[in-house]
Order: sequence, then structure tokens, then C-alpha cells
Amino acid sequence: MSLPLLSKIGSFYVGGRTVNISGTPIYERQFVLGGPVRKVDPNGDFESGQMYVQYFLQENPISPYPLLLVHGGGMCGSCWENSLVESEGWLQYFLRQHYDVYVADAVERGRSGWSQFPDIYKSAPIFRSKNEAWLGFRIGSHYDSNPQKRVAFPETQFPIDMFDYFMKMNVPRWTTNNAETLAAYETCLKKIGPSILILHSQGSEFGMQLIRKYPELIRAAVFLEPSSTPYKEACASDVPILYVWGDNITGTHWETYESNVRDYYEKQLAIDNKVTWLSLPKYGIRGNSHFLMLDKNNKEILALIIDWLQKALK
Amino acid sequence: MSLPLLSKIGSFYVGGRTVNISGTPIYERQFVLGGPVRKVDPNGDFESGQMYVQYFLQENPISPYPLLLVHGGGMCGSCWENSLVESEGWLQYFLRQHYDVYVADAVERGRSGWSQFPDIYKSAPIFRSKNEAWLGFRIGSHYDSNPQKRVAFPETQFPIDMFDYFMKMNVPRWTTNNAETLAAYETCLKKIGPSILILHSQGSEFGMQLIRKYPELIRAAVFLEPSSTPYKEACASDVPILYVWGDNITGTHWETYESNVRDYYEKQLAIDNKVTWLSLPKYGIRGNSHFLMLDKNNKEILALIIDWLQKALK
Repeated sequence: MSLPLLSKIGSFYVGGRTVNISGTPIYERQFVLGGPVRKVDPNGDFESGQMYVQYFLQENPISPYPLLLVHGGGMCGSCWENSLVESEGWLQYFLRQHYDVYVADAVERGRSGWSQFPDIYKSAPIFRSKNEAWLGFRIGSHYDSNPQKRVAFPETQFPIDMFDYFMKMNVPRWTTNNAETLAAYETCLKKIGPSILILHSQGSEFGMQLIRKYPELIRAAVFLEPSSTPYKEACASDVPILYVWGDNITGTHWETYESNVRDYYEKQLAIDNKVTWLSLPKYGIRGNSHFLMLDKNNKEILALIIDWLQKALK
Repeated sequence: MSLPLLSKIGSFYVGGRTVNISGTPIYERQFVLGGPVRKVDPNGDFESGQMYVQYFLQENPISPYPLLLVHGGGMCGSCWENSLVESEGWLQYFLRQHYDVYVADAVERGRSGWSQFPDIYKSAPIFRSKNEAWLGFRIGSHYDSNPQKRVAFPETQFPIDMFDYFMKMNVPRWTTNNAETLAAYETCLKKIGPSILILHSQGSEFGMQLIRKYPELIRAAVFLEPSSTPYKEACASDVPILYVWGDNITGTHWETYESNVRDYYEKQLAIDNKVTWLSLPKYGIRGNSHFLMLDKNNKEILALIIDWLQKALK
């Protein structure tokens, strides 16, 4: 079935500034076969801190508020485009529901590019190993280089045959660029106007700050396994928020992460914020990994989210 | 005006393999606010060499052959999405002409991610400064940090007010990953079937090898300022090829690049390959930079290309 009629597809960059590097020695490099060896001067003016946002706008949108899809740590916008079990992901699902959708690649990820370290970025990047991903994303209890010897959780919803493919979607990340990333999301939000945020994992840190700073620009926010909250205390807010959590959290570092966000949620609840906590296992849905949008039952979870969203926006 | 009806939007990764790293010391890092300090083990299995390809498929395609847009060095697929002077680029133009379009981010660029160096990649990346871009892309004769003090070529077609924005689209590059990039393009081409290639700059190195190895999978190829040819000698071929060149090449490193490709073109011509050489200044179109698809007259150039393409495919 064809997609709904789209009025525009495109992308833009927001944020960024000029940073000057000086005093680094010049070196030589051949760039292309048969071309001359050229001097490379690593000094000069560089653009840094920009963020890439791709958009898909409907001819007849179902809502005046677009969705902004915010990926998590070590990922880029591609995680919304392909659900591993199907060639379509949540991006296309939302498009088929006639939502306008913006997909961001955070600063330093994907098409946003990244900058020299330690010249511009303060630290070295982190690369996620398959070992770490298998355990850390709660796919199973034991990783092995041989796929046949990996141990998955008995009820896992992660499509384990696609695990190595999934690792192709991972990109390097830094832990020291959060201020620039937040600034870029702020510029993005001001540019696109009142929106619905769908945020995964590390995206929570930016999302929670955006909600507090620009409540008038956020109509609703869905936090998929938020990894952190920057706030100890809640404050009055009208923004409807849904927190969604998968399975097999006990005994992993996600126990601390969930507990931190749970404390914040309870404080929000105590002062009548419009917050909803959805623990999938408590709801009877077992085996979800950290990647709710890539798990085999991702459409079932999405249906719950859409249902919540429609009520929240009324 | 809305886009034509699309049947599918999506993306896939091709290529890549597991690489193991061992013997590197473990270190500690706090990933998220309020989260525990976690041990980071830089050892383990990593995916490397994969390539991201995004696609936009028509409900009613004008041609059975999709376009594959191949960016140049230090860029990713975003250079086709936004022409700087308009919010739409050649991607959307081709979509509005009812072509199916695939847009690649080469290995190590954009959403394809990149790998550790020197552990996996053999060299350090290269970052393009604004200084180098201004001169090397033949926008003008003098760069200055102050935009008011930059000297552009008198007739330049590059939208100089957008130069700093353009630099946000640049991503780091390596000069030592060409074999893996070629392998990924080969896999991509076999997956999508007979195609029309539109290649910019560094993309020429891959495109020329693809034409020689898989002539049955390439219906036509347009080389926009190809930076190199891997071949000294031509060989019999039925693939129609168009070479397009901008202005102000004399006295820059592009003089060598163009001369190398010109030698190859003349050898192709001598054995009756279907090759066409389009020097825009000789055709009467002055002032084009290296980024033909981002110059102010990019639609004029594209019209010439489409015209050539329609005749070549007959």
C-alpha cells in the first residue's frame, strides 16, 4: 500500500558554530588515486555542534503537531526506519497514520558529523561492542562471537537473528557533548513549532530539559526507556508524559536508571503532573529489550502509545 | 505541490563484518546524569565496514531503473537533499520527476558510522576546514574567518551567503577505506538491480570500478567533477557516461584531477565508448564551483543532465 501523499521531504541543519584550531603541524596525504600528494593543514576554521534533521510532511496531516523522533545513545535516526523484523519502522508507521515526522541525528551522530578531539571535543568517543550491546540492551545473559553460542532471554522479543545487522546501525558516541546537543534540539524545536516528542534512552536527558524550558512547544512526550532525568524535583506542568519500560531490568545498570526516573515520576505524580508509567511486564507484555521499537512486538507497543497519545491530545 | 505518490520510504545497511579488538585497557566513564560510573571495555566484537542506503520508491515510477546518488569525499547523502538556495535538492527534483531514488552514505560517513583507529581503520580521519573548502571547492580566491572579507570568484554560482551553512554538511573522512567502500557499493548495486548512477567527486573512483565490474547493472552514469579514475586504459563498454565539469579549474589541484579523467575519457572515445564530456564554461555556463548540485544554477545543470539521460536511455 502506498504512503499517504507527502507535501515535502527534506532536511536541514540547526546549531553549530565556528571553532578555530591553530598550531597543529601540516602533513601530507594522497586523497585520490593518481592525484597529487597534497599538504593537509589541520588548522583553520571548522564548523562544530550542528545537528541534522530530516522531515516528511503530509499533504493532509492528521494532527497540527508533528512528531519529533529523538534517538538514544550510540544511535542515529536510522533506528526509526527499519524495525529489523519488517522493512518499515516507526517512522513509516507514523507516516502511514498521516503524522508529519521529523527525525533527528543528534550532534556528533550520523549525518550531523563530528569534530576533532581533543582539539574541539573534550574526550575520546566510545564504541559499543557486540558483547556490551547483547548484555546492556538486555537481549540475553551471555554473548559469544559465534551466534549459535549466544544465550538470549527465554522470552526475548528482540529478533536475535538480526542482532549482527542491528549492530550496523550503531555509531560512535561521546559523553561530553550534551550541552551542544541540547542547544541544537532547542533550535530545532523553535524552528518546527509545537511538537510531540518520541524519545529513546539518552534522548530523555534532552527531552526533560526541553519540556521544562519550552512547555508551550511540547504537546506530549513519550519516553521509551529513559536513561536519566536531569532533575531531582518535579515542577508544575501541563505536558502529558508517558514512560514506557521493557523487561529483564533487574540486576542490570538499568535498575539504577529506571529507579532514578521512577523517583522523578513519583514526584511529578504527587503534584498532579499528567504522567503515566507503563511497565510492559506489569502490563503482561514480557521479554522486551531496551530497543522497544525494534523488538518483534514493536507494533503492539506502538498501538498502546498511539492510544495514549490520542487521549492525551484530546 | 505535493510529491508524487510513494510506495515505500526506508533504509538498509549493506556490507560490514565483525572485527575483534583485544588487549586494550578497561576504563571508567559516567554515561548519563545520575547514573553509575560504568566500566567501559573497549575490547570485543565490533561491526565495521557497513554502508547506509536510504530509498524513496514511486507508486508509478517513470523508469524501471532507479537512481543511485553517490556523494563525494567528506560528504554524506544529505548533500542531495537541500540545494542551499532552495529547501529541495536533486533528490526531491528526481522524486518529482517520478524516479525511484536510492541515496547512499558511504562507509565511514553519515549514518554508516565509523570504526576505531588505528585498531580497525589504518589511519586518522581528515577534517575539512572552511579555509580549505573555500579554496579547494573553487568558490573564491581568498578565505577569511570574517565572511565580509572573503573573496569569491566574480561570477561564482556558489551561494556564498550559505557557505557557513554548507560547512555543517561536511563530515570527517578517511583516505584508507576505499576497498571496503567499493565492496559495500557492489553489494548495494546487486541488491537494488540495474540502476542509473549519479556520482560526485570521490564517488567516481567507485563508480568507474562498478561500471567495469557490473556493466549489466548500470544503465547510465553521470560523473559530476570526478576526482579520479582507477584505470589508465579504456575497455569496450556499452554504458553511457556523462562527465560534467565546472569553472575556475586552472591553477588548482582540480587541473590534475580533470586532466587524469580527460585522458581516460579520450581513450574511451577512441574505442567508441558512449562517453560525453560537458565542460560547463565551454558550453557557456560560467562560475560553477565543485558542488554543481548546490550552486545557484544547479537546476539549469540538472536540466542538461536529464536531457542527456533521456537520450542515453532510449
